[in-house]
Amino acid sequence: MIIVIKPNATDAQIDHVVDRVKELGFTPHLSTGTERTIIGVIGDEDRLRAEPLQAIDGVEQVIPVLKPFKLASREKHREETVIDVGGVKIGGGNLMMIAGPCAIEGEEILFDIAKKVRAAGANVLRGGAFKPRTSPYSFQGLGEEGLKILRAAGDRYEMPVITEVMDPRQVELVERYTDLFQIGARNMQNFNLLNEVGQTNKAVVLKRGMGATVKDLIMSAEYVLSNGNQNVILCERGVKSFESSTRNMLDLSAVPNVKGQCHLPIIVDPSHATGRRDLIPAMARASVAAGADGVHIEVHSCPEKALSDGPQALLPDEYHELMQELSKLADVLNKQMTYAHQGANA
Amino acid sequence: MIIVIKPNATDAQIDHVVDRVKELGFTPHLSTGTERTIIGVIGDEDRLRAEPLQAIDGVEQVIPVLKPFKLASREKHREETVIDVGGVKIGGGNLMMIAGPCAIEGEEILFDIAKKVRAAGANVLRGGAFKPRTSPYSFQGLGEEGLKILRAAGDRYEMPVITEVMDPRQVELVERYTDLFQIGARNMQNFNLLNEVGQTNKAVVLKRGMGATVKDLIMSAEYVLSNGNQNVILCERGVKSFESSTRNMLDLSAVPNVKGQCHLPIIVDPSHATGRRDLIPAMARASVAAGADGVHIEVHSCPEKALSDGPQALLPDEYHELMQELSKLADVLNKQMTYAHQGANA
Amino acid sequence: MIIVIKPNATDAQIDHVVDRVKELGFTPHLSTGTERTIIGVIGDEDRLRAEPLQAIDGVEQVIPVLKPFKLASREKHREETVIDVGGVKIGGGNLMMIAGPCAIEGEEILFDIAKKVRAAGANVLRGGAFKPRTSPYSFQGLGEEGLKILRAAGDRYEMPVITEVMDPRQVELVERYTDLFQIGARNMQNFNLLNEVGQTNKAVVLKRGMGATVKDLIMSAEYVLSNGNQNVILCERGVKSFESSTRNMLDLSAVPNVKGQCHLPIIVDPSHATGRRDLIPAMARASVAAGADGVHIEVHSCPEKALSDGPQALLPDEYHELMQELSKLADVLNKQMTYAHQGANA
Amino acid sequence: MIIVIKPNATDAQIDHVVDRVKELGFTPHLSTGTERTIIGVIGDEDRLRAEPLQAIDGVEQVIPVLKPFKLASREKHREETVIDVGGVKIGGGNLMMIAGPCAIEGEEILFDIAKKVRAAGANVLRGGAFKPRTSPYSFQGLGEEGLKILRAAGDRYEMPVITEVMDPRQVELVERYTDLFQIGARNMQNFNLLNEVGQTNKAVVLKRGMGATVKDLIMSAEYVLSNGNQNVILCERGVKSFESSTRNMLDLSAVPNVKGQCHLPIIVDPSHATGRRDLIPAMARASVAAGADGVHIEVHSCPEKALSDGPQALLPDEYHELMQELSKLADVLNKQMTYAHQGANA
Repeated sequence: MIIVIKPNATDAQIDHVVDRVKELGFTPHLSTGTERTIIGVIGDEDRLRAEPLQAIDGVEQVIPVLKPFKLASREKHREETVIDVGGVKIGGGNLMMIAGPCAIEGEEILFDIAKKVRAAGANVLRGGAFKPRTSPYSFQGLGEEGLKILRAAGDRYEMPVITEVMDPRQVELVERYTDLFQIGARNMQNFNLLNEVGQTNKAVVLKRGMGATVKDLIMSAEYVLSNGNQNVILCERGVKSFESSTRNMLDLSAVPNVKGQCHLPIIVDPSHATGRRDLIPAMARASVAAGADGVHIEVHSCPEKALSDGPQALLPDEYHELMQELSKLADVLNKQMTYAHQGANA
Repeated sequence: MIIVIKPNATDAQIDHVVDRVKELGFTPHLSTGTERTIIGVIGDEDRLRAEPLQAIDGVEQVIPVLKPFKLASREKHREETVIDVGGVKIGGGNLMMIAGPCAIEGEEILFDIAKKVRAAGANVLRGGAFKPRTSPYSFQGLGEEGLKILRAAGDRYEMPVITEVMDPRQVELVERYTDLFQIGARNMQNFNLLNEVGQTNKAVVLKRGMGATVKDLIMSAEYVLSNGNQNVILCERGVKSFESSTRNMLDLSAVPNVKGQCHLPIIVDPSHATGRRDLIPAMARASVAAGADGVHIEVHSCPEKALSDGPQALLPDEYHELMQELSKLADVLNKQMTYAHQGANA
Repeated sequence: MIIVIKPNATDAQIDHVVDRVKELGFTPHLSTGTERTIIGVIGDEDRLRAEPLQAIDGVEQVIPVLKPFKLASREKHREETVIDVGGVKIGGGNLMMIAGPCAIEGEEILFDIAKKVRAAGANVLRGGAFKPRTSPYSFQGLGEEGLKILRAAGDRYEMPVITEVMDPRQVELVERYTDLFQIGARNMQNFNLLNEVGQTNKAVVLKRGMGATVKDLIMSAEYVLSNGNQNVILCERGVKSFESSTRNMLDLSAVPNVKGQCHLPIIVDPSHATGRRDLIPAMARASVAAGADGVHIEVHSCPEKALSDGPQALLPDEYHELMQELSKLADVLNKQMTYAHQGANA
Repeated sequence: MIIVIKPNATDAQIDHVVDRVKELGFTPHLSTGTERTIIGVIGDEDRLRAEPLQAIDGVEQVIPVLKPFKLASREKHREETVIDVGGVKIGGGNLMMIAGPCAIEGEEILFDIAKKVRAAGANVLRGGAFKPRTSPYSFQGLGEEGLKILRAAGDRYEMPVITEVMDPRQVELVERYTDLFQIGARNMQNFNLLNEVGQTNKAVVLKRGMGATVKDLIMSAEYVLSNGNQNVILCERGVKSFESSTRNMLDLSAVPNVKGQCHLPIIVDPSHATGRRDLIPAMARASVAAGADGVHIEVHSCPEKALSDGPQALLPDEYHELMQELSKLADVLNKQMTYAHQGANA
């Protein structure tokens, strides 16, 4: 950590900073230049980071040198993590292709969609039973009834299933039915929820918050990891920006950016990122080419009657065509898709 | 609601849109221009909004005309809401001046700060017992022990108290000790938590999320209101932006922007918005001048040893000086500060 | 265009709006609902757009229905534009691969870089002679001497050349040496400069401003087109965002977003977008997969001694390796790269 | 400057960094911790900043310690600059109240507006003769004819005048008629234009770009100052953000933020920042309370027929009322408004 002293700081102020650093058990190294004095502090930066050194009179700036995350960091854990969910591998060259409707609306329609996305090549089935909706007057999901339908569809078409959990009180219930937890963008910093899923051993897909930096996202993963659950998959799904023609701005550079500093897999959700069906195929291709470990796409057989997010869902045929393109790209890029062991979910 | 048809849509597609609108029980009004056909749809827009009309083939754009919130709207509820918490009025010209440390660290220090901010003119005492921290390795708050200290300090110095609630499971516990709930920025769209506090009758200060628009903020208030709790106070505390020299960007225009369309009070938190002690006084003055119904400021008697957010806390003396300035501004602007009834908290 | 009337507007106000619309030569269509009156206005929206209807008392909102650009629009001009610069085709499946140093620093080094990027497969050579630098104390470019070196390098290695023009007064000079003009992000709305290059017939690569929407970018292209120059190539190069670990945020969805509404080619510059050498290859691959008509990459043979933007330049070997990957992707996606006619620049 | 070395850097890489620093004439100070080696470099940081040290293999991060601007910095120039334009003082407690229409449309209307804003208390008259318009099809201004009208109105009502200059080729012409140059947001980084006005001795109001940080703004002022013109006034006018209900987001914290590090005056333009007439008065009050050295407000006597930006203009009566409020605030805050010497413009 580096402490930059204000140009007009008094000697007494500098001494006080030095004393405070020593009092905390660290050794300060002063360098005095013509314009600024800087103090290098060597030691356990995590402990130091928690101290409000910036609040000391005479301090201009405190500059951390190390990253604030440990378990998620690639510095100690050089190998890319590969997660296995019932035979579907994620990371290390293995693509997780999640598909399904935004919300679970009923058995017949979910089975129909599941059958089609499985045939197109998807290896994980999604569907929301608890829906975080901006408006209290929108459809809020079928709850446990939805979870049962999702489980049945996954079993029938041999796909692990993923569904969102919104509330620490729901974790136990959702865990009974799902193979992977999804933590939505609005809950990326719902730390009590992160702690709760961190105490299970199910894989967690953690979506980036709309106002979260890449570092914030990794810090939230650190919450889950520090509770003992090592099966975390990050998900880029767009952030807020001034561009008004798309719902969010997909930050694809987050993919190599995460991979350079963190060993966890990262997938991309172009459906929520763009909010526009016409942009999804191009962004899905770009995600795979950028090195993402998977793509999450909403598919609905009748978007104009979908109870949630219809306008951003692909039709099953469109999804099929897209998967053909993605397979070709995966081949060129030496990526592969694996599928559930037969009977894995039984 | 207005439906804009694509320039190359077929007659069959237009007919299908018209039929779908009728099927839903609305009357479509077609206007055909040289470049575009538009369909006006008159009726209950809230119901219509939930339908994915945008997903119908041939539809270019669906443009809502009405605001998506009702209970929070100023259209039906012209009067500004005035909330009374034990004698402290908020809204309608009454300022709520919240002050106190970021986190409750112990009895002695909180009592010291409480005494000083009360003397400076604060009318509500703050302190965090459950802290949402970006890092799992940071101080997470004293929990119930902290709540007890806060309650005692409020009783001793005759100030209603406010503290953050982060988890639906904590609502009952926190409710026993606090006068106002604070919902933090990271939980603005934690809808289950909003529902839970909406079922109490304690006032709720709802902070704007870092990636939330003004409309999103009002929609979250609508969640609380729709559960029956009408005592909601909004709080502007800065949003994410590309400006890197402040923690967030304080959007002061949110104050008149909210007031024009919503009857709830709105206060400002310049401490979290800027993250910089040197900018707080100017931003506090600007908040009052912009018409805010109060200001939320972190005060700590020893910021350099604070367990949380020290660098953005004012010293008690600095707070005292600032309150002098704010009082003068309040006078010029015909605003006033009211205080707790004697013994109100007893 | 649609005019939404305020809920509490008087009849006199509504009559005044209607009269004003008629006075301007348009026919208003009133629809009166229970909550709002809306007025549809059919006619030449471009003319109407210029009128400050929003400023009339009683008007809540004016909603344009048509896009504000014409010449750049895909509505009338369905075919993708293909631009040919001395044999190098851009658009319609043809990729422009621009490579070269940020600034032209001298003959020897530019010739060395040019030779290597040409061998790696680049088809256009870049180099800055006039540099827009944030600081007045940074290297500002070699001016005409640089242009001469660039021209010579392009001729020697049979590549058309591109260089930035910053000032309307330089257009004539730069035109003498270059094959394509580059308009930098900071000048995207330097309308007088756009008018000036619009009066030449050289191709223009127009970079998106750091605070510009996709619509703003297309409107700036419209300036060039409306001056008679139809050879405009858009360039996505990242926009400002709160993410602080990259210089800008690359908005790759701009590629399909532009292509859906505009017939001009669009390329991507991952060097300036990310500002980080480690992220460039992944973002270049993603650009091609997203459907971009080319990629602009800075290459320098000794980045640590580069006079400008060294940290974001690839080494020639890294560029070579990247071009191998991009070629494979291009094959799968049915894209091709074309090269200058022999002697085209002579 | 501080150079942070990558954790896995080789000794040879570290030696190379050290050698390179020495080669450039600086003395490196190594500190080796358990997790990172850092190299402090003491010396002329401006010279060092230009070197691409970040591009050297083994370097993780280069952290500047000093601010990149000199002439604009408050470190050497502690006193706030006070600028005098014909008797109107700006800075150091003196408020510049600029008012007038967006565009100069004709003599009669400008004289009418000028008379009214002068009576309301404005001390500088604005009006655009060259208009930067997003669309090539919008009104582009009256040019020199407009400048003559503006000059005449300023002389008649004894107000210095300000008008925008967009092109280095116009500087000489505009200088003949105006008292202050305005550099618009879109030209904040039009460095050749900055150089050109920097060579005059007229005061320059430099507006913050929509995607510019506070540091970028000060760096652009540095361009003007480094050309010899010391009369620069900064202007905050909102930046791009995801909030879609206002045109831009007014960053009022920029006012104390600039004042803490730069000695130049800074004013605020709430008209362009919000784009909404209903928000202007509150934001003008907030600007004065935040410590701004003036406020820039568009006023038009018939906004619904204005040729440019009508919806954001106040009516003369509204401006009059606002100025009453601002005067009261100015009194409380010990600010004053000064006016042109009689006959100063003659």
